[in-house]
Amino acid sequence: MNRIIEEKIQQAVKILNEKNIDMWITFVRESAYSKDPVMDVIVGTNVTWESAFTICRDGSYSAILGSLDKANMEAKGIYKDITGYVQSIKGPLFNMLNNKKPKSIAINYSKNSNIADGLTHGMYLILTDYIKGTVYADKLVSSEEIISALRGRKSPTEIANMAEAVNTTLAIYDKVTGFMKPGMTEKEVADFMLSIVKSKGLETAWEEDQCPAVFTGPESAGAHAEPTKRTIQKGHVLNIDFGVKINGYCSDLQRTWYFLKDGEDKAPAEVIRGFNVIRDSIQKVAEKIKPGVMGYEMDDIARNYIVENGYEEYPHGLGHQVGRIAHDGGCGLFPRWERYGTIPYMKVEESQVYTIEPRLPIKDYGVATIEEEVLVTKDGCRFISKPQKELYLIKS
Amino acid sequence: MNRIIEEKIQQAVKILNEKNIDMWITFVRESAYSKDPVMDVIVGTNVTWESAFTICRDGSYSAILGSLDKANMEAKGIYKDITGYVQSIKGPLFNMLNNKKPKSIAINYSKNSNIADGLTHGMYLILTDYIKGTVYADKLVSSEEIISALRGRKSPTEIANMAEAVNTTLAIYDKVTGFMKPGMTEKEVADFMLSIVKSKGLETAWEEDQCPAVFTGPESAGAHAEPTKRTIQKGHVLNIDFGVKINGYCSDLQRTWYFLKDGEDKAPAEVIRGFNVIRDSIQKVAEKIKPGVMGYEMDDIARNYIVENGYEEYPHGLGHQVGRIAHDGGCGLFPRWERYGTIPYMKVEESQVYTIEPRLPIKDYGVATIEEEVLVTKDGCRFISKPQKELYLIKS
Repeated sequence: MNRIIEEKIQQAVKILNEKNIDMWITFVRESAYSKDPVMDVIVGTNVTWESAFTICRDGSYSAILGSLDKANMEAKGIYKDITGYVQSIKGPLFNMLNNKKPKSIAINYSKNSNIADGLTHGMYLILTDYIKGTVYADKLVSSEEIISALRGRKSPTEIANMAEAVNTTLAIYDKVTGFMKPGMTEKEVADFMLSIVKSKGLETAWEEDQCPAVFTGPESAGAHAEPTKRTIQKGHVLNIDFGVKINGYCSDLQRTWYFLKDGEDKAPAEVIRGFNVIRDSIQKVAEKIKPGVMGYEMDDIARNYIVENGYEEYPHGLGHQVGRIAHDGGCGLFPRWERYGTIPYMKVEESQVYTIEPRLPIKDYGVATIEEEVLVTKDGCRFISKPQKELYLIKS
Repeated sequence: MNRIIEEKIQQAVKILNEKNIDMWITFVRESAYSKDPVMDVIVGTNVTWESAFTICRDGSYSAILGSLDKANMEAKGIYKDITGYVQSIKGPLFNMLNNKKPKSIAINYSKNSNIADGLTHGMYLILTDYIKGTVYADKLVSSEEIISALRGRKSPTEIANMAEAVNTTLAIYDKVTGFMKPGMTEKEVADFMLSIVKSKGLETAWEEDQCPAVFTGPESAGAHAEPTKRTIQKGHVLNIDFGVKINGYCSDLQRTWYFLKDGEDKAPAEVIRGFNVIRDSIQKVAEKIKPGVMGYEMDDIARNYIVENGYEEYPHGLGHQVGRIAHDGGCGLFPRWERYGTIPYMKVEESQVYTIEPRLPIKDYGVATIEEEVLVTKDGCRFISKPQKELYLIKS
């Protein structure tokens, strides 16, 4: 844990130099409840009072925090330069600033990217009040580029953790394939999968009430909802969205099954066709993704292919990054919709991990969707997840 | 769960009328990772895309959210007026505003109070960009007063949950009294308590790595740190800070023990004296707290009593509110220090629950501290926790 955080702090120093920013301050309070997502990456514990975690392009880094939080931070052993205060952070904060004299100070706000937007508006007002009328007042910039690069560029240790999370997820998918039968509810399927997660002493990649998310048949919610008491019927297309967290790193994968009707030994042609369009659209994106392409270009490939084949377009982006959280931020493979801001125009970089997860509804059967994870390499990508090539059939 | 949220939405409507505010918008995205603390109180689930939860003084309330989150919100059953969008929240947001024509719109930012400060600065910029140049641009106000009242004023259902959390905590303290012996580490004591929490299927009130927090002897961190391998010695004063969460509501209590040396049948006079000063300072506050007093006045009572008795003052506030989170917000029994902003000047209200938790170091022995919880009544308070009246002695 400490090792990855120390790696990330060193990586942040390099990124500050690359982006030509002198100082990066993460300014938080009660961080267990008002969480700045970057705390997990560069701190690894929480604080109660107003606290400032500062990383500088000269390689130095420090923590200023309430006196009661000091012992805990010292025990963690990552930050060596720790200042505790009792009545106000202002004095130690200005000591630090006057010592470093930064010409630019990045803080965690971003319209585009929630992972770089951990600074609350109240904390922004506090910080700008502190520095009002000083030489630092016009030095603030967004840390969006820093956090995007820091979270996106995975170290070998991070990639190993993510591959393990993916393999564990696929193994659980294998088990659920042997378990599911018509007549079971979505909830029973989810509970079975959760029991395996618990027996391994793991956590799910996102909140348990929607991880796994299980959707059976044409009437299901299709995405982002809790498993219900809806029962699996013969003739249903069923999809599951699921991931686990291992050593703090997530997987996020979807798979699709078909429940054979009596007398069938394969799925109906329209079900196979829908599934194959999804599978092939993923392959088309995987052939094109590489450092330098823009997110929306990848979304266009899959979206156009699906629409050309006569299906409705998916009502979301093609894929997001994965990391410490399932929906990790920075560049995403998103369409140019207002809600995605300027993110679709960001460029894919080496060592980022993306999901590719198009979907389409197959009338009267259910939703076909596959979600794979790819690691961007120097000149292309490789699948971290062994891709689903055929619809999984369940015969009862 | 739903019942409490529905109670809270109705209570919010009353508070909007009381505070003369037309509309309150909670504006969030990726709320599982960028958490607005008020989501637990008025929504009870999470959303992915930009979403607006609106409560109006006319009693209406609604949700606007990404289409993929709609089914989940419908399944929860709390919000009936739900609008899903695909490309941008702006259209449905303006439909809602133009329908209601609010003269004031509260949003979740606050310099004083982290629980009312869930709006990130990036989301603040997005919202103000949307309404720039419209009649709503100058209608924004802080929801600090609304959230403070809403979280602070506990309903009978909430108080019942909190009392159960307190009683469970005290029962676990009884068990640990029978368990602890010299030679054990802080960590072993914590693990024993956690095993009871798990066996009951409960959660701790705050993060497990510091709940319980166990501090033994004069060299311990004293507060806000993880249990260590430090061993309990005869002659140590030991304190524990701990709470559980039941039906979403927390307890937060501290107790103090003394480990008798060979031949001792009571604690040394200076240990007893230190403990009794803490105990009596709590009693003095309990006699004075009632609706209308200001937080700092209560802190002054305990702080002055401790200093008058020759001890150093505690380096934190006297007490905070408890609720869905252990450090719940709004008015607190805090000193007039810069880091507490204007909170110390807020007035105590009926139906709030406060901790009272002074501390003092006893030289060469450890830290004496007691944390009780009191419910503010119409003209005073009553203890929710059966108070610790005597130092707990452990003979080996």
